[in-house]
Amino acid sequence: MEHSPGEKITSVQNPRVKQLVKLRDRRSRDEAGVFLVEGYREIRRALEKHTVLTELYYAPEWFLGENEAALIAQAEQAGAKLFELTKEAFAKAAYRERPDGLIALAPQWRKSLADLALRPEPFLLVLEAIEKPGNLGTLLRGADAAGCDAVIVCDPVTDLFNPNVVRASTGVLFSMPCLVAEKEATLAWLRQRRIKTVATTPAATVLHSAADLRGPLAIVMGSEQYGLSDYWLKNADLLVRIPMAGQADSLNVGMAAVITLFEAVRQRGRP
Amino acid sequence: MEHSPGEKITSVQNPRVKQLVKLRDRRSRDEAGVFLVEGYREIRRALEKHTVLTELYYAPEWFLGENEAALIAQAEQAGAKLFELTKEAFAKAAYRERPDGLIALAPQWRKSLADLALRPEPFLLVLEAIEKPGNLGTLLRGADAAGCDAVIVCDPVTDLFNPNVVRASTGVLFSMPCLVAEKEATLAWLRQRRIKTVATTPAATVLHSAADLRGPLAIVMGSEQYGLSDYWLKNADLLVRIPMAGQADSLNVGMAAVITLFEAVRQRGRP
Repeated sequence: MEHSPGEKITSVQNPRVKQLVKLRDRRSRDEAGVFLVEGYREIRRALEKHTVLTELYYAPEWFLGENEAALIAQAEQAGAKLFELTKEAFAKAAYRERPDGLIALAPQWRKSLADLALRPEPFLLVLEAIEKPGNLGTLLRGADAAGCDAVIVCDPVTDLFNPNVVRASTGVLFSMPCLVAEKEATLAWLRQRRIKTVATTPAATVLHSAADLRGPLAIVMGSEQYGLSDYWLKNADLLVRIPMAGQADSLNVGMAAVITLFEAVRQRGRP
Repeated sequence: MEHSPGEKITSVQNPRVKQLVKLRDRRSRDEAGVFLVEGYREIRRALEKHTVLTELYYAPEWFLGENEAALIAQAEQAGAKLFELTKEAFAKAAYRERPDGLIALAPQWRKSLADLALRPEPFLLVLEAIEKPGNLGTLLRGADAAGCDAVIVCDPVTDLFNPNVVRASTGVLFSMPCLVAEKEATLAWLRQRRIKTVATTPAATVLHSAADLRGPLAIVMGSEQYGLSDYWLKNADLLVRIPMAGQADSLNVGMAAVITLFEAVRQRGRP
């Protein structure tokens, strides 16, 4: 390996190992202002998207042989401080059940509505109170595939920097503008910019495909269990529903989102 | 509880407990011709769909309080033999990490293409070599939501009766006609019935929304990692692709399937 070997950590009691374990909890993440990026694929995606990685922890005994040395060298070149761990110390630090010997730390970022650079005809996904980190990550992927400009998360139940969001987003978290905002501020901001809000709910009479989804658009999706709050149901410009055969719960929030997003893509032309 | 208490199993060494553990493996399932239905929600769905349950194992110490007594009584009335387990015996038998005290056994079924009763304008989902049980279950849900008549699984990598398919399908496995068939037999059967085969591949030039998806239709989806085999790419009547912004891997097979299925629903009228 061409990189410098870095500090060697051999004890499961090492304060850095303990800190990595703590960072699984939101409060510790927020206090430290950083989050975990675990795994070869995730770290590679972060580096591809020029995400700053401040520290990189690696344990060669866990490597799966995916050209880890090159990735470590690349992270170091991009400014990450390196730490080599023994097998046991890494096992303690790793969040995953089957670790692959690589964990990085990245600074959290906080974007606000004012930071969003919009195209002339914005295409946004607004999410309310999504509960499962895996779903939040999947929704980011769907927004990325559909060519959304940004994802706005209202009333967050799940931290954007939860390790399972990082994983399920397959790196989209590092590229898609994604921010947390109050629902009132979000609605005011959307209205100011004349962005049409279209909320998905089984109670709507209009089918998603019968609605005009062209022009400045924000698609609003509610939580897995409760759907959208009255706030969005009352204040959205339009309520639409996806026609459903079969069981009432056959579409999860991720599926409902991509169906609506890609109907908008169809109407708007290619993403 | 009004039901008869059933045989009591107190030992983790009990042959029935050992058999429940074995049934996690496909070979044992196929030899015994049965599969596991674990969990309150899954068993309730199975009973709703009049699925035969031959045996029901329960451990009150694991119950989460969802009216288990009524469910047990209903299963017994429908013909299930009851077995009460101690906490430890059930922990051994359970597949789930957090069991809820209920596991049923159901006989496997084998449908063939000849068994399928088709509507005048059939709407089918054909799946090739799906690798992850969770994805197979999700695809069943998507087909259910879109109102497909049946799902045909070609070159199966995943057993339809895998516990994670049962779980991820949220009960659709008990209602949706779903069968395994050779790809050659499937294509011949579809052609005989003049059912148009539309295969999804990133290499296609036609967008899914530009294709005519009305009339007798089979949408063909490939595996997570490799997509469709040459067989379907060469023999399908039409290749289509979903327009993609962002990362190449932002749409997983479940999302790609529901996007295509619901574009067909849009063109065909309500499901």
